[in-house]
Amino acid sequence: MTEEEVRLVIIQSLRDGGRKSFQDIMSELQPYDMAYQYTHLPSKNKNKFLLYLTIEQLTDLIPELNQEEQLEVLHKLGVEKSTKILDLMENDKLASILSTLDPEIVDELISEMKKEESEIVHILMNYTPETAGRIMNNRFVWIPQHYTVREAVDKLKAFAELAEYLNYLYIIDEEKKLVGVISYKDLLLSDLQDKIGDIMYSRVVTVDVNTDQEEVAKIIGRYDFVSIPVVEDDHTLVGIITVDDILDVIIQEANEDIEKLSASGKAIDFNTKSYIAAFRRLPWLILLLFIGLISGSIIDGFSSTIEQVIALSFFMPMIAGMTGNTGTQSLAVVVRGLISQDLNFKQSLKLVMRELWVGIIIGAICGFLISIIAYFWQGSFTLGLVVGSSLLITLIIGTLTGTIIPLLLYKLNVDPAIASGPLITTINDILSLLIYFGIASAFIAQLT
Amino acid sequence: MTEEEVRLVIIQSLRDGGRKSFQDIMSELQPYDMAYQYTHLPSKNKNKFLLYLTIEQLTDLIPELNQEEQLEVLHKLGVEKSTKILDLMENDKLASILSTLDPEIVDELISEMKKEESEIVHILMNYTPETAGRIMNNRFVWIPQHYTVREAVDKLKAFAELAEYLNYLYIIDEEKKLVGVISYKDLLLSDLQDKIGDIMYSRVVTVDVNTDQEEVAKIIGRYDFVSIPVVEDDHTLVGIITVDDILDVIIQEANEDIEKLSASGKAIDFNTKSYIAAFRRLPWLILLLFIGLISGSIIDGFSSTIEQVIALSFFMPMIAGMTGNTGTQSLAVVVRGLISQDLNFKQSLKLVMRELWVGIIIGAICGFLISIIAYFWQGSFTLGLVVGSSLLITLIIGTLTGTIIPLLLYKLNVDPAIASGPLITTINDILSLLIYFGIASAFIAQLT
Repeated sequence: MTEEEVRLVIIQSLRDGGRKSFQDIMSELQPYDMAYQYTHLPSKNKNKFLLYLTIEQLTDLIPELNQEEQLEVLHKLGVEKSTKILDLMENDKLASILSTLDPEIVDELISEMKKEESEIVHILMNYTPETAGRIMNNRFVWIPQHYTVREAVDKLKAFAELAEYLNYLYIIDEEKKLVGVISYKDLLLSDLQDKIGDIMYSRVVTVDVNTDQEEVAKIIGRYDFVSIPVVEDDHTLVGIITVDDILDVIIQEANEDIEKLSASGKAIDFNTKSYIAAFRRLPWLILLLFIGLISGSIIDGFSSTIEQVIALSFFMPMIAGMTGNTGTQSLAVVVRGLISQDLNFKQSLKLVMRELWVGIIIGAICGFLISIIAYFWQGSFTLGLVVGSSLLITLIIGTLTGTIIPLLLYKLNVDPAIASGPLITTINDILSLLIYFGIASAFIAQLT
Repeated sequence: MTEEEVRLVIIQSLRDGGRKSFQDIMSELQPYDMAYQYTHLPSKNKNKFLLYLTIEQLTDLIPELNQEEQLEVLHKLGVEKSTKILDLMENDKLASILSTLDPEIVDELISEMKKEESEIVHILMNYTPETAGRIMNNRFVWIPQHYTVREAVDKLKAFAELAEYLNYLYIIDEEKKLVGVISYKDLLLSDLQDKIGDIMYSRVVTVDVNTDQEEVAKIIGRYDFVSIPVVEDDHTLVGIITVDDILDVIIQEANEDIEKLSASGKAIDFNTKSYIAAFRRLPWLILLLFIGLISGSIIDGFSSTIEQVIALSFFMPMIAGMTGNTGTQSLAVVVRGLISQDLNFKQSLKLVMRELWVGIIIGAICGFLISIIAYFWQGSFTLGLVVGSSLLITLIIGTLTGTIIPLLLYKLNVDPAIASGPLITTINDILSLLIYFGIASAFIAQLT
């Protein structure tokens, strides 16, 4: 059945059938599909749709909706039903929903929630954004190490509804410190009488609550884990992070890199309103406007040179553009490389040397090419030489700028992607104009 | 223990202890850690390290190494041991290792492998790169629907070593067609006498073998699945894709987007040799060189205007730079947005209208600002008006170019990221010069 056919059946069951026939359809849908159907339903059917869903289904549905729809649904359900749902919801999803709501509404909702649940949410929302503590959830199953396999399986059965993933059981000691882990596969292959302490795996890979989410993604990707335990400084187990949360982190971090590299402004998507998008993009553009005026005053400084040989201005955009671009190329290589690999000083130096050679090779080839073109276009051998040698030098410098600036930022613990494309481009613009007109002024006697 | 301490213990056990003490350490290490230790071991210890590992451990170790080390290890182990390992290896990892090896070596290795295994690899390597067929593996467990829960659990136990993840069991009919799925959690919560056919979930989300890997990532991310079944056209189950493979896909696709947006050349990382990196980056740079010459000839065409009012050239880099940048901003928003959301014609039109408004807002603000600056800097009201109105128009056009071009490419089923940053920048460069000098020429009488 296509999405549209499913929708027609849903509408029909809402109109003619009872709750039972509606539930028969719902039990076959994934939360994403449920949310898709809800979003595309005619407004007049939406209330009954929500009414017919169970609390558990609503708990699954809400995190899949966008922010506006979440608000709308919570509003339609009323405070009492909403808090029941929030009590049931995984804490990481709950924290992310609450963090987008109006503080007043959050307070109202939390005050109605179970004390135990609301405390957990408070703790979760107090961790720094984009750290392990903020994205972890507490839906894991733990056992003491003196358990037998049989006891472990029984506890697992009792908590199966609660546990988000059933791949690992975590083993803790009397002080709630994490001492081991056992996969469900190992449980299955063991004898029911075996002691957990004997068969568990004790070199557990963990992350600290304060670990950056990007680092967590790196570790999960490295080990191909489905989930990873999160511990406090004293090794107390406080949560787990699952790979589906990490998928979102990786997409978000890649988007942030692209936002920074293209200076496109924070968090603009297809649904952002035009004036919000405009004001998020403006700061960068105004900065660039002023930096662009520096280029203007450099040209102003060399205006007598240009007035004498107007042909010099023909090559200006090409030299500035290519220098800017070679810098962006190097920048992209550095920023993306640092995502999967850390660099020490020696490796950084090796990279800078590599990029120096890249600059020399592309500078020599492009410089030679433009010399020939300039000579045939303008009929001046000196002009060809000036343009060609300028391009050689500016491409080398552009490549190095695009490599060294992000590496320096990285060493200073600043996100290297902040050295965004346009910033590198503008620095290279200014350097390339200085070099080009500097060389041209030196040869001005031969050029005129 | 730190990585270095572990390494010292390993070296000691290789020198003094026997295989048993070495295995005690290894059993606590993850494949990634094993590979890390192997890579950082002094060369004289490496042979013994490999000798002491079991075939299963070698099978886990090899996919974690880089290409050169893989070759080195396979060479050290010899053909006989290597083929044993390749027989055991997950097919997707195997296919990705073989696809980087020399064809002659591949033929030699495959000819020694078990017929059954080598046939599967042949089939896998025949799928188009970057499709579901190429990244799937066949380590899944399937059962017929007449099984009881008890029979299912027994089969699962028998195949537990083989199954990469134990989250789902797939249910197939007599013709090997996929008819249902059941999670391990559901098995656990069911009665041992229940029939699988009664409790299975029959609306299975699947992907086709030819589905693009980016689309697979979108689906897995959407549903928070740990794995997804892959089927042929006739719905025969042929493999599964697991979320850890998808993590790699998402990182790879984000890198490709950044490569294209910054035109930084295909697959350059920290280890790429300088001449290779240079030649991968050159095609773009040479293309940009020629496009840059078009800007040059536009300036050439307007050289009499510039000669009359040299101050016009001061604002040239700023206008071109800002138009280019606003285009890149829009481009980045479109390219990244399309990763998580598909657009129909109506939505595309809405997006274009949104970006038109963004262009008008930022154009009006930046244009007004630069008018004032130009007036105070050069003391000419007309010049201020010319520069400001040019910036207003070019920013609107730049924003639209950066939106419409990738959307058109997307409708034509071309990857919109190919409309790379530099390309949009260059198109906008040319347009902005034409508009700026066009307006300036119209007012030339008032400017001189």
